[in-house]
Amino acid sequence: MGVDAEWLRAHVRELADHPEPGVSFKDITPLLASTEAFAAMVDAVAAPYASMEIDKVIGIEARGFVLAAPVAYSLGAGFVPVRKPGKLPWHVESEAYTLEYGAGELEIHRDAVGEGEKVLIIDDVLATGGTAAATLRLAQRLGGDVIGLGFLIELTLLEGRSQLDGSAIHSVVRY
Amino acid sequence: MGVDAEWLRAHVRELADHPEPGVSFKDITPLLASTEAFAAMVDAVAAPYASMEIDKVIGIEARGFVLAAPVAYSLGAGFVPVRKPGKLPWHVESEAYTLEYGAGELEIHRDAVGEGEKVLIIDDVLATGGTAAATLRLAQRLGGDVIGLGFLIELTLLEGRSQLDGSAIHSVVRY
Repeated sequence: MGVDAEWLRAHVRELADHPEPGVSFKDITPLLASTEAFAAMVDAVAAPYASMEIDKVIGIEARGFVLAAPVAYSLGAGFVPVRKPGKLPWHVESEAYTLEYGAGELEIHRDAVGEGEKVLIIDDVLATGGTAAATLRLAQRLGGDVIGLGFLIELTLLEGRSQLDGSAIHSVVRY
Repeated sequence: MGVDAEWLRAHVRELADHPEPGVSFKDITPLLASTEAFAAMVDAVAAPYASMEIDKVIGIEARGFVLAAPVAYSLGAGFVPVRKPGKLPWHVESEAYTLEYGAGELEIHRDAVGEGEKVLIIDDVLATGGTAAATLRLAQRLGGDVIGLGFLIELTLLEGRSQLDGSAIHSVVRY
């Protein structure tokens, strides 16, 4: 994985002072657009979970969908969207989370995960871990057995892993 | 494809009077969540374009990402997001479109598609065709050769195809 990670990292565009001064935004769109790198990225994120017979892969709106949906396809699992309030059309469960600046809420359909199903949560970036932790609580509330959480990018200084204790966490590119 | 389409349709949840009286909303989340149906859906949407050497698959925020990203993966193409205003972090091109109720705008990164690249546009539902037509214009403005547009669901009464003349349009489940 080592060489792959550096090659994938070379496709990430770093935008200085975005969205605000002092922050370096990781723009993954050049990586997504690359014919070679897109498939390699999906395979790298999915690889640690390949033999775990995952039933459902949960993706977090909206960039998380781009990674989680092909990971679900490659693992032969179903795909479950976790969305911002008011976007899912049927009955939902909700979880609040706090951000560095403010708070948010995420929703999941009540029938999205069955009791005892093996669940994998996938997102593009692990930062403070707030949205991933809320998604973990949603999956567990529905009875899901959360096998792990996978990320393309991990911003290690923000220590998001500390919010996700007890889960198999994997990331491919670390900053 | 005939039998597959009916089997896929059986996984779609129809919500009467949503989001307003008289409208039957097609909720595809049970289809996405099904281990068997999710992969079959991706394969059915991708199939007509399998031999066309597609370079880039464009997905439209946010539900379109769920379908377009695994289609890109299965075709060995790159993935390009088209997003609502202010969501893409780099330089963009914009296109306005009109809806039944109001108007909207979509954006694409300027470097997302190269001159002469073979492009496929994928979305979950073809309704009036407004967002698909705006996406088509964005791809063409960047020099893309739009080979086709693929949809899981087509609401035929809304005649969205009439806005997309000259492109190879395929849909899997029609209402």
